[in-house]
Amino acid sequence: MSAFIVYLNGKYVPDYEAVISVFDRGYLFGDSAYDTTRTFKHTPFKLESHVSRLFNSLKYISIELGLSQEDVMQITLDVIRRNRRLLNTDEDYWVTQRVSRGRQRPGQSSLDCREHTLIVYIEPLPFISYAHLYAQGARLITPSVRRTPPECISPRAKLGNKLNHILAQIEAKRIDPGCFMPLMLDTRGFISETDAANLFVVSHGRLVTPHRHTVLEGISRDTVIELAGSLEIPCSEGDLTLYDLYMAEEAFITATSYCVLPVTSVNGRLVGAGVPGPITASVLQAWSKLTGVDIAAQATRNAKEADTVSRNSGIRGGSR
Amino acid sequence: MSAFIVYLNGKYVPDYEAVISVFDRGYLFGDSAYDTTRTFKHTPFKLESHVSRLFNSLKYISIELGLSQEDVMQITLDVIRRNRRLLNTDEDYWVTQRVSRGRQRPGQSSLDCREHTLIVYIEPLPFISYAHLYAQGARLITPSVRRTPPECISPRAKLGNKLNHILAQIEAKRIDPGCFMPLMLDTRGFISETDAANLFVVSHGRLVTPHRHTVLEGISRDTVIELAGSLEIPCSEGDLTLYDLYMAEEAFITATSYCVLPVTSVNGRLVGAGVPGPITASVLQAWSKLTGVDIAAQATRNAKEADTVSRNSGIRGGSR
Amino acid sequence: MSAFIVYLNGKYVPDYEAVISVFDRGYLFGDSAYDTTRTFKHTPFKLESHVSRLFNSLKYISIELGLSQEDVMQITLDVIRRNRRLLNTDEDYWVTQRVSRGRQRPGQSSLDCREHTLIVYIEPLPFISYAHLYAQGARLITPSVRRTPPECISPRAKLGNKLNHILAQIEAKRIDPGCFMPLMLDTRGFISETDAANLFVVSHGRLVTPHRHTVLEGISRDTVIELAGSLEIPCSEGDLTLYDLYMAEEAFITATSYCVLPVTSVNGRLVGAGVPGPITASVLQAWSKLTGVDIAAQATRNAKEADTVSRNSGIRGGSR
Amino acid sequence: MSAFIVYLNGKYVPDYEAVISVFDRGYLFGDSAYDTTRTFKHTPFKLESHVSRLFNSLKYISIELGLSQEDVMQITLDVIRRNRRLLNTDEDYWVTQRVSRGRQRPGQSSLDCREHTLIVYIEPLPFISYAHLYAQGARLITPSVRRTPPECISPRAKLGNKLNHILAQIEAKRIDPGCFMPLMLDTRGFISETDAANLFVVSHGRLVTPHRHTVLEGISRDTVIELAGSLEIPCSEGDLTLYDLYMAEEAFITATSYCVLPVTSVNGRLVGAGVPGPITASVLQAWSKLTGVDIAAQATRNAKEADTVSRNSGIRGGSR
Amino acid sequence: MSAFIVYLNGKYVPDYEAVISVFDRGYLFGDSAYDTTRTFKHTPFKLESHVSRLFNSLKYISIELGLSQEDVMQITLDVIRRNRRLLNTDEDYWVTQRVSRGRQRPGQSSLDCREHTLIVYIEPLPFISYAHLYAQGARLITPSVRRTPPECISPRAKLGNKLNHILAQIEAKRIDPGCFMPLMLDTRGFISETDAANLFVVSHGRLVTPHRHTVLEGISRDTVIELAGSLEIPCSEGDLTLYDLYMAEEAFITATSYCVLPVTSVNGRLVGAGVPGPITASVLQAWSKLTGVDIAAQATRNAKEADTVSRNSGIRGGSR
Amino acid sequence: MSAFIVYLNGKYVPDYEAVISVFDRGYLFGDSAYDTTRTFKHTPFKLESHVSRLFNSLKYISIELGLSQEDVMQITLDVIRRNRRLLNTDEDYWVTQRVSRGRQRPGQSSLDCREHTLIVYIEPLPFISYAHLYAQGARLITPSVRRTPPECISPRAKLGNKLNHILAQIEAKRIDPGCFMPLMLDTRGFISETDAANLFVVSHGRLVTPHRHTVLEGISRDTVIELAGSLEIPCSEGDLTLYDLYMAEEAFITATSYCVLPVTSVNGRLVGAGVPGPITASVLQAWSKLTGVDIAAQATRNAKEADTVSRNSGIRGGSR
Repeated sequence: MSAFIVYLNGKYVPDYEAVISVFDRGYLFGDSAYDTTRTFKHTPFKLESHVSRLFNSLKYISIELGLSQEDVMQITLDVIRRNRRLLNTDEDYWVTQRVSRGRQRPGQSSLDCREHTLIVYIEPLPFISYAHLYAQGARLITPSVRRTPPECISPRAKLGNKLNHILAQIEAKRIDPGCFMPLMLDTRGFISETDAANLFVVSHGRLVTPHRHTVLEGISRDTVIELAGSLEIPCSEGDLTLYDLYMAEEAFITATSYCVLPVTSVNGRLVGAGVPGPITASVLQAWSKLTGVDIAAQATRNAKEADTVSRNSGIRGGSR
Repeated sequence: MSAFIVYLNGKYVPDYEAVISVFDRGYLFGDSAYDTTRTFKHTPFKLESHVSRLFNSLKYISIELGLSQEDVMQITLDVIRRNRRLLNTDEDYWVTQRVSRGRQRPGQSSLDCREHTLIVYIEPLPFISYAHLYAQGARLITPSVRRTPPECISPRAKLGNKLNHILAQIEAKRIDPGCFMPLMLDTRGFISETDAANLFVVSHGRLVTPHRHTVLEGISRDTVIELAGSLEIPCSEGDLTLYDLYMAEEAFITATSYCVLPVTSVNGRLVGAGVPGPITASVLQAWSKLTGVDIAAQATRNAKEADTVSRNSGIRGGSR
Repeated sequence: MSAFIVYLNGKYVPDYEAVISVFDRGYLFGDSAYDTTRTFKHTPFKLESHVSRLFNSLKYISIELGLSQEDVMQITLDVIRRNRRLLNTDEDYWVTQRVSRGRQRPGQSSLDCREHTLIVYIEPLPFISYAHLYAQGARLITPSVRRTPPECISPRAKLGNKLNHILAQIEAKRIDPGCFMPLMLDTRGFISETDAANLFVVSHGRLVTPHRHTVLEGISRDTVIELAGSLEIPCSEGDLTLYDLYMAEEAFITATSYCVLPVTSVNGRLVGAGVPGPITASVLQAWSKLTGVDIAAQATRNAKEADTVSRNSGIRGGSR
Repeated sequence: MSAFIVYLNGKYVPDYEAVISVFDRGYLFGDSAYDTTRTFKHTPFKLESHVSRLFNSLKYISIELGLSQEDVMQITLDVIRRNRRLLNTDEDYWVTQRVSRGRQRPGQSSLDCREHTLIVYIEPLPFISYAHLYAQGARLITPSVRRTPPECISPRAKLGNKLNHILAQIEAKRIDPGCFMPLMLDTRGFISETDAANLFVVSHGRLVTPHRHTVLEGISRDTVIELAGSLEIPCSEGDLTLYDLYMAEEAFITATSYCVLPVTSVNGRLVGAGVPGPITASVLQAWSKLTGVDIAAQATRNAKEADTVSRNSGIRGGSR
Repeated sequence: MSAFIVYLNGKYVPDYEAVISVFDRGYLFGDSAYDTTRTFKHTPFKLESHVSRLFNSLKYISIELGLSQEDVMQITLDVIRRNRRLLNTDEDYWVTQRVSRGRQRPGQSSLDCREHTLIVYIEPLPFISYAHLYAQGARLITPSVRRTPPECISPRAKLGNKLNHILAQIEAKRIDPGCFMPLMLDTRGFISETDAANLFVVSHGRLVTPHRHTVLEGISRDTVIELAGSLEIPCSEGDLTLYDLYMAEEAFITATSYCVLPVTSVNGRLVGAGVPGPITASVLQAWSKLTGVDIAAQATRNAKEADTVSRNSGIRGGSR
Repeated sequence: MSAFIVYLNGKYVPDYEAVISVFDRGYLFGDSAYDTTRTFKHTPFKLESHVSRLFNSLKYISIELGLSQEDVMQITLDVIRRNRRLLNTDEDYWVTQRVSRGRQRPGQSSLDCREHTLIVYIEPLPFISYAHLYAQGARLITPSVRRTPPECISPRAKLGNKLNHILAQIEAKRIDPGCFMPLMLDTRGFISETDAANLFVVSHGRLVTPHRHTVLEGISRDTVIELAGSLEIPCSEGDLTLYDLYMAEEAFITATSYCVLPVTSVNGRLVGAGVPGPITASVLQAWSKLTGVDIAAQATRNAKEADTVSRNSGIRGGSR
């Protein structure tokens, strides 16, 4: 089997040669930003929005890449093109751009580091991790680890500092290995997000999702809001407590890879009737229609294939 | 000039060959822990304490290294030995151990990643960055960025997620390029630490330093407490506000590299008389006596040398 | 088998006749306070301290009982005496005093209700619930439910409003049925207490327990502090985070029934070496010596007896 | 005079026989939920909404009653029917359903207790307590006791743990015996609710009521919102500070019994002009029209009758 | 040059005779409220709104002036009339009403002091301080000093206690003498206001301004909202973080004197493109149209005049 | 009757001539600091400490007076000397130094204002306000107004911004005109201070007083700590909740004027036995001994005199 081709600072290299210095601040301090979209039929979904958000994240941490958004989109499409021969027709994949601050020279402070690192790469979607959950629904647990508040680091930027999310994931997995994800509260006690997805709750027939202050402004989240609009389902932001979730009729999470996954259990309690609900289904269906791919069916087909090529190196469901 | 030798997962390589995969979670997510000590006369200071703290940091993020503390100490001494020929007699250096979670295979969660990365390396101390401050004193600014609270990530572990500190540093440097470091408050409004040092305040002849909840439990901080004990200067932990600092007789920061640096200005206000104070001096003197090196004098001598070899790739004053 | 005798507002009745009106505010609103001690060799332990704390709890919620502390102690001893024939020689039991505000007449506010209800009763200790944990150690989980802060209801009074604790217990049991108790954080993110016990952590050879603000000032907690004093183990109050617990050498909980139980797992992480530790053992041993009863051995003997008479109607480990 | 008939676990008994074991967790720990509506012309108002909320409250504390909502409504109507002969034509009453967790058997945790207690009963409305306030307006005081935050116990469920409210009431009554109710702030400093009512403020001609996070989602509150809609008075939820109330044109409280009562004084300050305002009056009038009962006039007539039968055992204005 | 005429407790005196006792509580404790409007073509802008807000501020601190709003408006117009001869045709000015509690007699508490002080005076607008900023944009810095929360003193009243604002200004000016104003965060970490202006952010083409809880409800702020309405620019209140501002397309501040000033730098970062933006310009233009004065041009003309008469004794931009 | 002589910016004037411009920032914004001591036998108590604290307060708000502490002490003694002829032998008085920032010239920011105002004056002690409370004890109420947190303005400086205290006083007096003072909580819910005194609680025979973060570091408070030391009463700082106060054996407040006053009621609850306690008495007695004046007896004698000369213009008990 051939290797994937990775863009690395102007070069295209096989993935096993995609290496960086251990003195790159991306490695030393997680001093980086990134973004990830997925393809539908090998075409990236909302690529422009993702690259635009990447540039916001970079601006937030004061990295000036020296390339335009247009450049990064071109490179991204190039990476996809160069790897296309490796992918099955029915398969789709993640595509990620990642920028780290690069190497720090003696006497430099953060603002002086200018030799930034850009990598762009693709990864097959980890269908096997979640395909069964379209029917079963996912199980979430609320860990003690709270989401970092905006006055420390804004949760709205997509950054290479994920230990807050990772600690939450570890706690949830240690307590219940079968739980899909940790559902994090913010420091005020309101629901924020999982380690890699945004949450929506169906309450009295309306969709509600946590305020943008303490969550990543997911592009998948935006897509749900748009789809809800076209489906004429009222949808709003709000401060949500666990009580809202415990009393909800339905709930689902949204992220780049699986788009929409029903949540059927939180902290050992059934959500709604404990099975995927009709509004969740209609949002997923609308998304499938929008992209021309039956999202759940594709996942199921691919998950069944024994020899799935999977080079997934991100955390599960790692983009929004 | 020869390259430094770096330990990398069982091998000793020149620093330009010290590279890792961009798919290592250390690079992707800052999913790592590290520790740094410095040498005095080429012997590492409190190496055992630093390695012990490294193991605590690893335990906190659920990385089991597969080596003992004794092993890591041995490797560290080996790295020093192999690089000794490159160092001047009067020079000292940082020595760092860094462990990242390694590469994540498809379908793995954080706890499943077991192929961790260990690197050990040395760097010349950046005397030139701080030597003049023993006499002048450092200038600090309080940025708007608050230190991440312990319910999100414990500040007491030394981890590869430094964006909170970096954002603070960037804000301070943008506002006042001549400021040495940002002095961060915690989310309750009390003083925590700078981006890379612990603070001590002299108030009514007593030393006070912020409570351990929201700071790295610096080994340099411990050393100051020990030296204060031997000097019979009362020393305690407490919740400190900026008012305490504005009214203080003296203040200083402590970190692995410079040990003790006087702070003479905070937010544009003079601290005490605006010059390094006598208690600060006596602590630094005791530290010099303990190590057999006149710490400030060594820094000054080295800073003067034109052709200082400096491969510093950490943030300034990056260890405690 | 005979029934236990219960004191109820001046009368002694068999337990199946110990009933109150559904219009008693104790039933309607949990408007009550209580205290529970246990016996050693059929003699109540620190009865005076418990009754004194009961009177503090009553004062806090503005109930004036109309009886003196001496009266309540006399009634308590009387209840024990009247039930003694039902108890085995090696068995010990809980003894509880409970005062509810009584029935509210039309037009009355809380302060006008004066016909308070006093009940005093005994219950066999639930040895079977915890006897095996002296050797194994208990498993705790941190639920999302936080301990009610003192500006709402003081955690230091022992009151008939336990839903905060019960919600925490339910969450922990739903997520992990084998966990012994929920370990609650306070609203600042510091460790407070379990639903029915105080926590002690052994850190660098010293005992530390959460500050009194957000916990019940347990009499068992006081006893541990006294025993630590006599054992010359340094012991102090402090703000504790989960990091402290994860890094601790040992941890244990203390409550009236089992006195001291080792904690060997928190949130799926081993505490210390994951087995009961030596300082925990020495505190338990000192307590056994103080009371003349080998506490763990007694629990084990009783737990083994098949036909244990158990009329336990409190939550497990329901007193401190 | 005859006794009221109470439904108690499947039986109909006179109120003096409505007793439960002191070992019922409802009595021990306030481990229960309840709901109360009132009748207009002997017909319960929004019974379905109240029973639906009762089932939400039970779900929140993990009690499965074993009866359907329909069953509970039937029992409720039955209780009303059986007591009708005792009531005057012009009188109305509260009707309450209350479910406690029941008796805990040895070794059981909360989730194991399954023998729940259901009681349903009626009480004459305490007209005498509030009839004069339609004209005078009520006086409120802000106590130091803050409303329990949602991360501890959700204020949106109607539960048998009322000590937080009771402590607030006691403080207000001790300081000013003539005050009608305490007006509680939440832990962020915003207005939440009184011990037994929701607050509405009239500001620039608009109705505003506190956000649902820290209050009971009163059905009376919902009714006000509906009536405001039909009266074309703008009405919204918001975070309210005492400043809003001090500057308001009018304010009123709403609860099941009195429906709408003007608030004319808070913390010794007049609200608006210090007399009941026109918007308050119009909402009350609309409510009277909706129910076919002149609510204030009925209260006044009944309050005047000397020999009112009153078996009120709740706190004043105890339902919403 | 003649002196300005000041109204002081019923008399009209030259400004150098406008003195009060050092025992007036306005001097002792800042125990006062005030309001300031500006004129356009010598006619006060929204005088009624300002006087109405003054009476709200007085009500908040329990001062009853003994004059009607109409009286105060009359006096204000009188003061303007009496000073008109001193003003150039193209010049405009601030006009301020200030009420202090007056002198406290022995044994009096705050509520007993009834001899209040009223002063009304005008001041030339400090065009020179800000005229250049219409083109350049203002530079703001976030100080460590947080805005006093509403549970301590409501930021919505305009009061004579400005040390919170002054401390913020001092910190900003010490750190960067060229910064125009401090931008304060509230105690939750959200943006509140500057020391003397409200902030608006342009985000995705929409105007957003901080919620009213932690800011002065500026009349200039209201004017912007009205103008935005007429310009069909969507405008809303919200919780804003610094991230919102860093990512904004434009930002501006609004206050009585300069009406609208672009903000082009915050904490050393450029806002948007770092130059005044088109929405800012359109709001300012609409304001000019509303008042018949080209606001920026007037400021520029006046700032150029060498011999500007300036008796400004307030802080810069001291009203909204 | 003669007037008191007041020092005002270098001159000695009769009090009715002690006037300042209404444009002094002390009047406009409360932009000032002050300190007050009292005399015993016409000699000022701890004058040096008070003047030293004044200079700290000035430093905090960045006012450089241009006089030395020695100068200010000399002026103070001079003011006392010049007024001595007006005082009875048995009478004592307050003596206050007050510094305001002075008049702001056009274009100046806070730091540019350099013409500061200094006034020094004496006032007879308001014995009549508190003499009866030595025997009766004072009644306190907890208002909703919370003490400004240190991240907004440090409570440790004695500043001319008292509206936070005044709003608390007004609320308490409106609710209960007979209450002596409001007892304020800080924003975390812990006890801070009254509007003009520090609180001490006697708990288990030990004195405890709130931590210094949220209170004025009273010199009277320091004196109590010193006297407790000499009386061998254990005394410490701590976080105190109302529960501590409700359960206390005794409580008292301390301020410059009355030194020590017992507190016998808080929020309508008796403190301890509801009468002044023995430890309170012993501290007051020690203070009398220290100063050679029977403090309570002097107050009682003076309060009885009908024609007390009282020119008190501060708030009651206005210094510590």
